[in-house]
Amino acid sequence: MFLRRSVTLAMSLKNYSSEAKNLVAVAVNNQTGVATVTLQRPPVNSLNLELLNELSSALTELEEKKARGIILKSSSDSVFSAGLDIHEFSNTEEGRLKKFWTALQDVWIKLYGHSAPTVACINGHAPAGGCLLALSCEYRVMLKQKTIGLNETKLGIVAPLWFIASMENVIGRRLTELSLTTGKMYTTEEALKIGLIDEIAEDTNDAVSKSENFLKLFQNISPFARSQTKKFIRGNTVQSLVKTREADLKAFIDDITSEKVQKGLKVYMESLKKGK
Amino acid sequence: MFLRRSVTLAMSLKNYSSEAKNLVAVAVNNQTGVATVTLQRPPVNSLNLELLNELSSALTELEEKKARGIILKSSSDSVFSAGLDIHEFSNTEEGRLKKFWTALQDVWIKLYGHSAPTVACINGHAPAGGCLLALSCEYRVMLKQKTIGLNETKLGIVAPLWFIASMENVIGRRLTELSLTTGKMYTTEEALKIGLIDEIAEDTNDAVSKSENFLKLFQNISPFARSQTKKFIRGNTVQSLVKTREADLKAFIDDITSEKVQKGLKVYMESLKKGK
Amino acid sequence: MFLRRSVTLAMSLKNYSSEAKNLVAVAVNNQTGVATVTLQRPPVNSLNLELLNELSSALTELEEKKARGIILKSSSDSVFSAGLDIHEFSNTEEGRLKKFWTALQDVWIKLYGHSAPTVACINGHAPAGGCLLALSCEYRVMLKQKTIGLNETKLGIVAPLWFIASMENVIGRRLTELSLTTGKMYTTEEALKIGLIDEIAEDTNDAVSKSENFLKLFQNISPFARSQTKKFIRGNTVQSLVKTREADLKAFIDDITSEKVQKGLKVYMESLKKGK
Repeated sequence: MFLRRSVTLAMSLKNYSSEAKNLVAVAVNNQTGVATVTLQRPPVNSLNLELLNELSSALTELEEKKARGIILKSSSDSVFSAGLDIHEFSNTEEGRLKKFWTALQDVWIKLYGHSAPTVACINGHAPAGGCLLALSCEYRVMLKQKTIGLNETKLGIVAPLWFIASMENVIGRRLTELSLTTGKMYTTEEALKIGLIDEIAEDTNDAVSKSENFLKLFQNISPFARSQTKKFIRGNTVQSLVKTREADLKAFIDDITSEKVQKGLKVYMESLKKGK
Repeated sequence: MFLRRSVTLAMSLKNYSSEAKNLVAVAVNNQTGVATVTLQRPPVNSLNLELLNELSSALTELEEKKARGIILKSSSDSVFSAGLDIHEFSNTEEGRLKKFWTALQDVWIKLYGHSAPTVACINGHAPAGGCLLALSCEYRVMLKQKTIGLNETKLGIVAPLWFIASMENVIGRRLTELSLTTGKMYTTEEALKIGLIDEIAEDTNDAVSKSENFLKLFQNISPFARSQTKKFIRGNTVQSLVKTREADLKAFIDDITSEKVQKGLKVYMESLKKGK
Repeated sequence: MFLRRSVTLAMSLKNYSSEAKNLVAVAVNNQTGVATVTLQRPPVNSLNLELLNELSSALTELEEKKARGIILKSSSDSVFSAGLDIHEFSNTEEGRLKKFWTALQDVWIKLYGHSAPTVACINGHAPAGGCLLALSCEYRVMLKQKTIGLNETKLGIVAPLWFIASMENVIGRRLTELSLTTGKMYTTEEALKIGLIDEIAEDTNDAVSKSENFLKLFQNISPFARSQTKKFIRGNTVQSLVKTREADLKAFIDDITSEKVQKGLKVYMESLKKGK
């Protein structure tokens, strides 16, 4: 069942104030202060420039409104997010490429360092950029029988340092190297075993409920002390991108516009078309 | 049973040379060169300026005397240390606040980087500053049915970077973030499972005996090679505070003297009085 | 059974091009592009200047030839490598000492940061420098009933920072400190449990086969994306030695030529002679 506009659902619930957007829906529970941010770009929540811009705005808004928690989920029950929209990589002018990568940097900086506690409610597969969003949260609840991983090398692409740091800070350096070099996609059960996720859910309702339970741990914690502690722990990781944004952007553009990568992408996209 | 002066016990044992102090007792086994440092400020070994100054002096002395090992324990069987004495935080002049925090920095720098192998014999609960002392040692033996954790956020306080690093170097970044942001206190059994402690003991005698067994691992190890290796591993962590002591002190004073924190402390202390 | 020249074996196999050297044999499978690098300095593959120079050359060659994988193994079934040749430490002129340590630095820098995926096929005991070689690879398969560890402190020697980092990047800081300060040698089974190795093999054939299976994970991975990802993950560790080679060399020379260490080595070597 696809919820193209989660706002429909949110509106039918008491205590929720919602805001409909095109590709990202935000519903805030006015009693708990917890915001549910739903990615809703069917069929697979590919992260294109427009979705990233909306997500970035939503995160800023929730920072300003001092949300007491953020649950990041998908409107789909099969895919959390398929990752970066491959169409952004190919056949594109440099201006849009720059905006695209800058928007992704923005989203990561805001999500990774958000003052609110964050949960990834991974109600579907989460490869590459989908995995990155999940890793940027503080807690991960995942539907059974799905897969997750930073599989960039499988596409001939190099995950940048901040993707790597996001995973290393969760599962350590040894497993991160093994995961990234082999491009490994973990099943939900494997992911739990190595600490890549924290809990398994039976279905999306169960996943949302478990996400909410995690956020309840903070009900009696001073938001200031909590967010300052998170900043102490995550600050260096965030700053390592903030200080190198320009170089990171240039490296991405150089890599992605290289003949080798463009050729590989063309082959991959044609295989996708045939698949359809 | 409370041993207000562990020196009483120590004196009755062969091969021990002891020195009675007010709040910290040091007993050195002349055969093994192992020193037992006992915190003895009933009822809960709250870390006030005087205790910290004594502990700091004791650590310096054991450095100079080239102790072959240090066992840090409590004179109580119920509380290892309840952490920083909350009375130091409230209703206090800035002069004493500065001395207090500087003494805590001193203790940590000396304990974390001590040349001797160090064991925390956690014979009682170890919240906050009590947990910090335990984390600063190289090995942790803990009584069953106690609790341990850096629960500062529960009091609205932000643990400084060196508290965080002390935990991260033991259980990794992921679990440290989860522990600190939620202010989690772990039971002895949970602590063992995540590597926050190394062994469980039945009672204090058993805990001391297991602590001594750990130190026996170093009987045939060159003290120089051992301490130099420890310095290589812990040096950066120690230096990160040594280089920022002034800023760390200022941040503490600013934080603790803020209206918000003072108000929270007043509420907390009144609840303690009612509890009594 | 000792294979003094593994080239003998390699020549009898189809699809292998081999190069006989004195102390290191390299056999490349022309179908897979995987190189088997065999240490063959009986009886225990002690790492002396000549062996290190050959290993260094072999690694450079495999970098230039874009090997698709490297399996590092021993010609012996009992010892992978006993570590640095103790004869290099004693009774030696400073010129050779410098060359020796510089060669070890070279080998580590090349192996730790090699573009090809690397497996240590640990078909025998791997103390000290033997363990370092194994830790520098990306994956470790080990024969049952052997031992492995950085046991330098047992000889009164201090493992340098890059030895320590090599272990820390595999098993984390906590276990690394415990392992190095106690000079612990782990059995194969213990090593698996803490992640120091990845798989146990029944015999050398099984170990080689499991090593090959690991390398098959990369058959469909772009070598460029893979090696760049590895560089991102390992770059800082490699650079931390590259930037301090001179100081590291000086520290080694000062340490090893000190009266204390020389005296300890003399005692140790005499005990070895008596053992024979």
